[in-house]
Amino acid sequence: MSDIQFDARGHLKHLLTLEGVGRQTLLNLLDRADSFRVIPGEAPRRHTWLAGRTVANLFFEPSTRTRASFELAARRLGADVLNLDIAASSTVKGESLQDTLYTLEAMNVDVFVVRHKDEGVQALMASHAAPHVHVLNAGEAHVSHPTQGLLDAFTIRRHKKDFTQLSVAIVGDIKHSRVARSAVRALVTLGTRDIRLAGPKSLLPKKGDLHGEFCTDADEAVAGADVVMMLRIQKERMQKAAVPSAAAYFKRYGLDMRRLKRAKPGAIVLHPGPMNRGIEIAPEVADGPQSVIREQVTNGVAVRMAVLQSFYT
Amino acid sequence: MSDIQFDARGHLKHLLTLEGVGRQTLLNLLDRADSFRVIPGEAPRRHTWLAGRTVANLFFEPSTRTRASFELAARRLGADVLNLDIAASSTVKGESLQDTLYTLEAMNVDVFVVRHKDEGVQALMASHAAPHVHVLNAGEAHVSHPTQGLLDAFTIRRHKKDFTQLSVAIVGDIKHSRVARSAVRALVTLGTRDIRLAGPKSLLPKKGDLHGEFCTDADEAVAGADVVMMLRIQKERMQKAAVPSAAAYFKRYGLDMRRLKRAKPGAIVLHPGPMNRGIEIAPEVADGPQSVIREQVTNGVAVRMAVLQSFYT
Amino acid sequence: MSDIQFDARGHLKHLLTLEGVGRQTLLNLLDRADSFRVIPGEAPRRHTWLAGRTVANLFFEPSTRTRASFELAARRLGADVLNLDIAASSTVKGESLQDTLYTLEAMNVDVFVVRHKDEGVQALMASHAAPHVHVLNAGEAHVSHPTQGLLDAFTIRRHKKDFTQLSVAIVGDIKHSRVARSAVRALVTLGTRDIRLAGPKSLLPKKGDLHGEFCTDADEAVAGADVVMMLRIQKERMQKAAVPSAAAYFKRYGLDMRRLKRAKPGAIVLHPGPMNRGIEIAPEVADGPQSVIREQVTNGVAVRMAVLQSFYT
Repeated sequence: MSDIQFDARGHLKHLLTLEGVGRQTLLNLLDRADSFRVIPGEAPRRHTWLAGRTVANLFFEPSTRTRASFELAARRLGADVLNLDIAASSTVKGESLQDTLYTLEAMNVDVFVVRHKDEGVQALMASHAAPHVHVLNAGEAHVSHPTQGLLDAFTIRRHKKDFTQLSVAIVGDIKHSRVARSAVRALVTLGTRDIRLAGPKSLLPKKGDLHGEFCTDADEAVAGADVVMMLRIQKERMQKAAVPSAAAYFKRYGLDMRRLKRAKPGAIVLHPGPMNRGIEIAPEVADGPQSVIREQVTNGVAVRMAVLQSFYT
Repeated sequence: MSDIQFDARGHLKHLLTLEGVGRQTLLNLLDRADSFRVIPGEAPRRHTWLAGRTVANLFFEPSTRTRASFELAARRLGADVLNLDIAASSTVKGESLQDTLYTLEAMNVDVFVVRHKDEGVQALMASHAAPHVHVLNAGEAHVSHPTQGLLDAFTIRRHKKDFTQLSVAIVGDIKHSRVARSAVRALVTLGTRDIRLAGPKSLLPKKGDLHGEFCTDADEAVAGADVVMMLRIQKERMQKAAVPSAAAYFKRYGLDMRRLKRAKPGAIVLHPGPMNRGIEIAPEVADGPQSVIREQVTNGVAVRMAVLQSFYT
Repeated sequence: MSDIQFDARGHLKHLLTLEGVGRQTLLNLLDRADSFRVIPGEAPRRHTWLAGRTVANLFFEPSTRTRASFELAARRLGADVLNLDIAASSTVKGESLQDTLYTLEAMNVDVFVVRHKDEGVQALMASHAAPHVHVLNAGEAHVSHPTQGLLDAFTIRRHKKDFTQLSVAIVGDIKHSRVARSAVRALVTLGTRDIRLAGPKSLLPKKGDLHGEFCTDADEAVAGADVVMMLRIQKERMQKAAVPSAAAYFKRYGLDMRRLKRAKPGAIVLHPGPMNRGIEIAPEVADGPQSVIREQVTNGVAVRMAVLQSFYT
């Protein structure tokens, strides 16, 4: 699966997953992203790395924030962006995914940013893509969300210098979370050993599915952590996890000031958004001094620019 | 409410309402707009006032014309434009309005153009916005539509020199009209004293809600007017107003040639669009020599450019 | 109908239909398109022929591929593009088509690319358009799809030199096909005499409706052909045509390797897309060496650029 990501020289050709992406490649992407970071309020510089290139956003799952982030990243590199509303058009007529790829390739689309609720769609597209075409995974089932993993690593690196010495707690619906999977992958590659994955028993993955220590006690997971990453919980999932209410979930797994105090002083708090305030995270934590949640969004654009630029350098 | 519109130096920072916007500020915006007017058929000049800036169109209420007008205004100033389909995305996931603001700010969105059916959304966003961010009201409940008020004033000024000597008739569903409210506000600020507001009794607002003389007789309102502004009527509203049919409404409140003859010779006719031809306005009036309805649309782009540019000069 | 397409000097002002467009005008457009062809993988040059111009995509019928093709064509010529989601907006409020035209004209939209399921919409818009405005038909009922006809002719010319010596078979639902109508029109104008139109009896048009020899036997139609154009079949139409199943349709009218062998060696295969693989065309034909289906898509952008550029030279 991950081999098709690389060209013969070992350069990243597609970004489908962080599995198999080595430490040096990861660090190079984070370094590139550093150069693209813009302080909110400043007008971002307009680059020309992708001038004349066309990036298509193929979002089979709707997402304002991720689509906007990729759109701005591509435009700030000088690319043309094509937003394709998939539900409303070709799928209506029953065209196959493969033919949608071939058609857009034939119109000189060079990069496909793809989000899909099913597993393997991005890899399938990459395996059929023309040699010059790049596929970028913008969210795949519960499996993978590599640019999210990169932005999490990037954000952590800006605040905590040494990945190998970090304790990271990830709390929530680990089982269904592509965010957790990609973050854990990035952290492991960067040398982090102490990763705690906490959530209701039925929302923990199978042993061996992802690296880390599983537990059902959020207090225990957060204790002494340098980084606390909260995940979004869906109401349907709460019910299946036999958590009777949002209030009960918040009490057992939500991050409030009291629980955050168990972490190391200076611990940072991440959340991929969109947040359910008062369910998985208290507003005073989300907006508090330890939160780097908004910075994650800023860094997301920079990281996506880095990946796109890496395809053309 | 209106104070948050201005920065410490008294410059317009957001445009939420025309309430509290002084005569000189209004006139300055109209003067700016003069420089942006383009004759249809000519290629508009590409400006760079907003180069590197990102304008997000957040339309919670759909609107082809207003969205297109803002999109073209922003692009002709050199901005990047992000169109966000709100119904289809983050609200689905239940993200709060505030978090949508924070997220887009973190992606370096600089200006939010917001249309919403509820009152106060734009002010709420402005009150939470980062210091460098501008919020522009593109239609708020029945309360306010400030760029519409500006374009109406701009259009009137191009044809009628002295606002203080004008008689203006506004006819239709005054009660629910943000267009009427913003137009009246602009006219009053510019010195117009004779404003007549006509419509079915149940579609007139409460006394004191907006400035002007109320009446239920359209003929009386139009008599001797320099400016006649017709409002869009919704079918549901007609029924509640006990107007039995579109034909009955047209007879009592629609503007046909006969009724227009009661106005001053050379009176101009405005309508914010989209028009219900044959209901509130006769086609021969809408397309006739006294109509400035299409010019209003052209002026709308210029006025929106003026407001956007004013944020960056 | 077709006369309003030309200005006083006989230049193409709108493109509504290929009816009435002469051989030299057609060939000039194909020659122009030659200069715009880009090899997939290369970054298309950015032209400035339409700099400062605004092209509005008014798609009343959804279509990913055609909308994307026009959008890229317009942008690669330097135009601003406005995508208008018609279903969701002004039609909701009941604005007439004519007022939508006037409104967008007043915002300095210069070119309207219009797709509609009803006949005559594009001609109606052209007849009301301002003198400087151009209307481009992007698909009209079952009647006309002129840029598709042009791209088919363009694609055929790249592979087969002399139109007058060609045998062309078009197979499928001829009756409801705007693609077939526009292709036949282009071919006849360019001198092709041997055109065979094959499909189930109930899906053939009335005699005289379009030029060519009608038959119900696909094998017969394909025999000795230089060009085989397959049409998309809709399931609803199959049923009305008393074809019991997709498999039965494929057997009788689908293009597989066996049937293609009846054509001339070196015959090329066209399909307007989106394809129903295994229903009207076998995958090994669609992806085989005689297929020019993906090239048609590439040529579609070039041909649309040619038409747009011709309006401004």
